[in-house]
Amino acid sequence: MYRTHTCGELTLNQVGQTVTLSGWVQKNRLLGGMTFVDLRDRYGITQLVFNMERNAPLCEQANALGREYVIQVKGTVAERTNKNPNIPTGNIEIIADELTLLNTSEVPPFLIENDTDGSEELRLKYRYLDIRRPKLKDVLVKRAQISKAVREYLDAKDFIEIETPNLIKSTPEGARDFLVPSRLVEGSFYALPQSPQILKQLLMVAGMDRYYQIVKCFRDEDFRGDRQPEFTQVDCEMSFVHQEDIFETFGGMVRHVFKKVINYELPELNRLKYDDALRLYGSDKPDLRFDCPIVELNQMLPSSEFAVFNNTIQNGGLVAGLNASGCAAYSRKQLDELTEFVKVSHRGLSGLVNIRFNEDGSVKSSVDKFYTEEQLRLIGTAFNAQKGDLILIAAEKTAKVRKSLGDLRLELAKRNNWIDPNKWSVLWVVDFPLFEQDEETGAITFAHHPFCSPHPEDLQYFDTEPLRVRAQTYDMVMNGNEVLSGSIRIHNHDVQEKVFKSLGLTPEEQEKKFGFMLNAFRYGAPPHGGCAFGLDRVVMLMTGGETIRDTMAFPKTSGGRDLMMDAPTPVDKKQLDELGIATKQ
Amino acid sequence: MYRTHTCGELTLNQVGQTVTLSGWVQKNRLLGGMTFVDLRDRYGITQLVFNMERNAPLCEQANALGREYVIQVKGTVAERTNKNPNIPTGNIEIIADELTLLNTSEVPPFLIENDTDGSEELRLKYRYLDIRRPKLKDVLVKRAQISKAVREYLDAKDFIEIETPNLIKSTPEGARDFLVPSRLVEGSFYALPQSPQILKQLLMVAGMDRYYQIVKCFRDEDFRGDRQPEFTQVDCEMSFVHQEDIFETFGGMVRHVFKKVINYELPELNRLKYDDALRLYGSDKPDLRFDCPIVELNQMLPSSEFAVFNNTIQNGGLVAGLNASGCAAYSRKQLDELTEFVKVSHRGLSGLVNIRFNEDGSVKSSVDKFYTEEQLRLIGTAFNAQKGDLILIAAEKTAKVRKSLGDLRLELAKRNNWIDPNKWSVLWVVDFPLFEQDEETGAITFAHHPFCSPHPEDLQYFDTEPLRVRAQTYDMVMNGNEVLSGSIRIHNHDVQEKVFKSLGLTPEEQEKKFGFMLNAFRYGAPPHGGCAFGLDRVVMLMTGGETIRDTMAFPKTSGGRDLMMDAPTPVDKKQLDELGIATKQ
Repeated sequence: MYRTHTCGELTLNQVGQTVTLSGWVQKNRLLGGMTFVDLRDRYGITQLVFNMERNAPLCEQANALGREYVIQVKGTVAERTNKNPNIPTGNIEIIADELTLLNTSEVPPFLIENDTDGSEELRLKYRYLDIRRPKLKDVLVKRAQISKAVREYLDAKDFIEIETPNLIKSTPEGARDFLVPSRLVEGSFYALPQSPQILKQLLMVAGMDRYYQIVKCFRDEDFRGDRQPEFTQVDCEMSFVHQEDIFETFGGMVRHVFKKVINYELPELNRLKYDDALRLYGSDKPDLRFDCPIVELNQMLPSSEFAVFNNTIQNGGLVAGLNASGCAAYSRKQLDELTEFVKVSHRGLSGLVNIRFNEDGSVKSSVDKFYTEEQLRLIGTAFNAQKGDLILIAAEKTAKVRKSLGDLRLELAKRNNWIDPNKWSVLWVVDFPLFEQDEETGAITFAHHPFCSPHPEDLQYFDTEPLRVRAQTYDMVMNGNEVLSGSIRIHNHDVQEKVFKSLGLTPEEQEKKFGFMLNAFRYGAPPHGGCAFGLDRVVMLMTGGETIRDTMAFPKTSGGRDLMMDAPTPVDKKQLDELGIATKQ
Repeated sequence: MYRTHTCGELTLNQVGQTVTLSGWVQKNRLLGGMTFVDLRDRYGITQLVFNMERNAPLCEQANALGREYVIQVKGTVAERTNKNPNIPTGNIEIIADELTLLNTSEVPPFLIENDTDGSEELRLKYRYLDIRRPKLKDVLVKRAQISKAVREYLDAKDFIEIETPNLIKSTPEGARDFLVPSRLVEGSFYALPQSPQILKQLLMVAGMDRYYQIVKCFRDEDFRGDRQPEFTQVDCEMSFVHQEDIFETFGGMVRHVFKKVINYELPELNRLKYDDALRLYGSDKPDLRFDCPIVELNQMLPSSEFAVFNNTIQNGGLVAGLNASGCAAYSRKQLDELTEFVKVSHRGLSGLVNIRFNEDGSVKSSVDKFYTEEQLRLIGTAFNAQKGDLILIAAEKTAKVRKSLGDLRLELAKRNNWIDPNKWSVLWVVDFPLFEQDEETGAITFAHHPFCSPHPEDLQYFDTEPLRVRAQTYDMVMNGNEVLSGSIRIHNHDVQEKVFKSLGLTPEEQEKKFGFMLNAFRYGAPPHGGCAFGLDRVVMLMTGGETIRDTMAFPKTSGGRDLMMDAPTPVDKKQLDELGIATKQ
């Protein structure tokens, strides 16, 4: 037997016991005829003590140990004189009697500690060493706990986990598929699933009633920022449900996970309509750990000659602003930074009007020429402005103003530390539009996917005002990140036709794109709906991480490379010949 | 709300309650002014009653329902006069007050019943209807229960589930890889994992200590018989363990799963050495639900002129047989069938000698010319032959005799119903050889994979008698099927070199084939070992199924096709261009 205990469990209760531990040498140090070794395993660190007087050869053996050597030690648990309150085993140490070297180690290319000196590239190459760092190891452990808590909850609610295949049919919809050449059917290809969307809906047609799967999904996208080519979804679907059932079930799931994994009592999730989210926070995934809503001024602006505001309103645009609470004393430089922030091309404002409600009671603004102090104070009331507050106002097309102020709101929160790191904001955003209009072509397309059910009461607008039709689509937003997306699906053939017609799809195109699914729906499809959680992102948020990469054991770089295995690679021509394909040269 | 209860839960306890149910119409039938509808969902079947006298229009609506229509019904729970003891809801029925048609259905192409009239091809094409059959649905539910029980057990033992990637490096070892062309690294390919073998060993190097994953694996093999291109393993690995720890842990796991899922108390697993398995049962995966061991006769054959036996022994072959208990009265035809059975080319015996111990006490054999009755009775004692027994004896090269008698043993069990269908035989087969000799080339190759640790006490035979070296490799055998395979891995660099040397691998070849793994093992690899369960096969055995296909929601045909989705398919040239590949014409 290699060990009687792990390196994370011995306490004063075991003092006097003979124990055997195995693990890695974190460090060893000589101190006045004694050698202290920190022995590490997944569970913790335990201090070993070797004594020159007690056993000189053994002590010399311990002195010779290098970092990351693997050893087995037999000894006696003793109370430490110099206790370490920072670790669970800090009250004890092991007086070593036997030492077995299980394996040596070359000197690792970076420090195996939370604050390491290794670059990310080096750490990805030696991922098996990177994972020894407690920080990353703890994320993987917590990830497993989150998956476990999800399963516990769903199992208890009669969901059953069903595995769907990874080698499926390539469909022309959505993102780019990863393809897998078929050897047995030469010239043909499987696709890796972008999600089990169609398959899980077919499981509802099959009567499985409540399905879930923690499942890998694949998208061959250009890896902008923090995307991975393969990622994990908690994929769920239920039959005979309305939106309310979904909210109750999966709101409950998130609350269960928070309680189980981080012992946090998340309150019932609030709901925010898509329209309100955009209007108040300039985003369909608002971070509500702080408030600072957008205040619209079109209806209340005092009369003035200020052309920017007047023209904006005349042209159907929006004048709106934020209350940067406590920022009245911002310097010229700070104000310029904020102006630059909203002027960058993807936001595209021309500038910001500011009104300072100074601590001394005075009011100053960048539009003093156009507004009296009384008028400025009136504007201030719309923001509930107090002494010390700074009001920032934008005027442009509505979408631009909302987007820019939404971003500015987050920027202000960051600059002013408005966000309590121990606070969580988890909410539902509901009533998304069913269709979107392509900005360039003006064509109408589905906002989510073509199987999302419209709101029954909006069916009347299909022909006249399609953009007014709301979908039974919902997102869950966690601290400003979309972590779940889903919808009630269309199960009725007539409604599906209506949607396809609005999209301008002919019956032939419908058949080509969605044939086998539409066929299935002719055989008694039940009302159903579901959702998919982005597990990687939830893990990142719940572990306070900064990249999706560090939620995974073996992630890929933004170029889709695995630096450890060195993948992808060229393969033998023989392998390609068998598959009936060739690479281009 | 679509329902207050499922179709599987109402009993006499709810009589008088108003309930709402939703589901599929299994059938409806008119009977003297009443219409009875069997309403089905995942949970069961409930009888609905519509009464002409009570509500004629509603009853007519019910009459018009077709098979597999989806309906919602509100009504009152009532005690049935005509109870059905075969279903849990058989004591009650619902007196219907409201009926809502949720969806219609075309007439299904086959009967949605356990005994269906659909061919397998048709059922695979309409898999979403096939799964509505309780038989298949129950398998999927049980599969989920098995996975759940596995997770419960491993979670409680401090294993953590870690997801490994699906887009990995193609390696030249083992079966054929499925390849995935990379778009971002043109001309390069990922491979889908045949198993996470190397990655899980790296997780041990990373210090994760106890890993598991219920994971899809991929092999592009020719689909002989019951193979699927993608299949599911319960993949496990542990650090700081000896074989004993593995046996205890995973023997315990199987016993837990049996108890939880089918409430069967599996005893502690016995162990059988590989050599003994071959000697006694002619197979490394013996079915021990019945005994009937092979009895070797070389040492005890009475002296005779029978050349077949004498020559076999002189040439180093084996004379051995089985006791076909109770088969003394087999007809000429039956005996001929058994002889044909062992003569087919892949068994290759030239015939069988038989000795009948007749019920009347007489002894008759096909070698009466060569052996006296007394000699035959002596041979009989080796088999513990009783009145009514039939002894069947073969003489050939050892391997052929064992293989043939092993198969014959199973054939006899089938013909004589020796196997109690309620009995389970689960055991460990241990001490596999480390190396095998290629029959044609005589070259020595690894029997399992090159990271299996040899038995420490057999290291002495490496250079002189490599085929004598046992590996720390083990299989779990369930009712004659290998359901788990694993080994203690090599963690020591010197031993690994010894193995590679025996395989004739140069350092360059080692580097090319196993480079990144060998590199990882230089940084403090702990002693470790593990195994992988074939989940699909376990599900098949535990649900009494006959094909792996019916353990999966959406399986492929033996040609690798998904008949429902129609995959694989040709794809657009544009997609291939983006990937930088072309198909051959």
